[in-house]
Amino acid sequence: MTTEPDAGSTPDAVRAPVPHAGAVPVTLALRPEALAVAGRLPHDFNTEYGDPTPGADALAARLVELVGDGGTEVLIVGADNPSGPEGLAVLRFRPSLWSAADECYLAELYVVPRCRAGGLGRALLRACVARAVARRCDVIDLATSEDDVAARHLYEAEGFHRTEGEGGPLTFHYEREL
Amino acid sequence: MTTEPDAGSTPDAVRAPVPHAGAVPVTLALRPEALAVAGRLPHDFNTEYGDPTPGADALAARLVELVGDGGTEVLIVGADNPSGPEGLAVLRFRPSLWSAADECYLAELYVVPRCRAGGLGRALLRACVARAVARRCDVIDLATSEDDVAARHLYEAEGFHRTEGEGGPLTFHYEREL
Repeated sequence: MTTEPDAGSTPDAVRAPVPHAGAVPVTLALRPEALAVAGRLPHDFNTEYGDPTPGADALAARLVELVGDGGTEVLIVGADNPSGPEGLAVLRFRPSLWSAADECYLAELYVVPRCRAGGLGRALLRACVARAVARRCDVIDLATSEDDVAARHLYEAEGFHRTEGEGGPLTFHYEREL
Repeated sequence: MTTEPDAGSTPDAVRAPVPHAGAVPVTLALRPEALAVAGRLPHDFNTEYGDPTPGADALAARLVELVGDGGTEVLIVGADNPSGPEGLAVLRFRPSLWSAADECYLAELYVVPRCRAGGLGRALLRACVARAVARRCDVIDLATSEDDVAARHLYEAEGFHRTEGEGGPLTFHYEREL
């Protein structure tokens, strides 16, 4: 893993701002207090889509562990909103096989239903790309459903492609549960 | 990262056998001598498909580093073949967000052209699944091209699916170079 550049935070900061090209403030959740708030969102995400979830508290505890290991970052919009955060992204980093750089995987991107279509997803995504660049990754990737048309439009508008090269064959994501 | 169970190796072993359901012997490359041999294959893979490669020596050195970190495993078929190894797989492990288990990503699967259609890919894939199970992962995933029909048939025959659930929408892999 490459050394993480300064994220604009002091070691005691609960959150740090993530510079990106838009007006919506995105922060990096660094400490357990911020991650406890963040843990609600992946729980809500899976609940909305009928997928299993270990619960908000278990997710928050796991985020604390993963962020502590240095290989995961959690980005939030609306962290100070009195009715709770408005969206989150989870990034996973690992050293690339093909270069001396790291590669970044966008594991989760979620905006709460009441805040959709307002640019928060785009702000989060741009902040994710900025974090991947700051950590000197040479690629960022993700998997998403054919059905999630709004997300796919956003990814494509932000320069992601689901083909091998421009106009090449599609790239499918396969998985097997164990 | 969960603790790696014993792979049937002693600490001094260069390679260790990976048990799987087939007759083709698959070994885990553990030491620099074995990884130096293995590094030739991802180089050959990218050369065959016209993709950039840092060269066999750089790949071997990177594999030594990644395997040493404990988050990567390299599986080989035909390691003792006098004309070189016949195939390899590279697995990446990381702790899951959604459970206390790890998740496994099949980053590379390659069989040299002269040995294709002989069951080596299937043997490697089954050994990969066995390693993911041995490391108590709850999922194994990968990305592959629509054009790679032989590989897709193999993945589907071995229980991988490219949809959300059985018969659900397709899952696309998106990436953006940075």
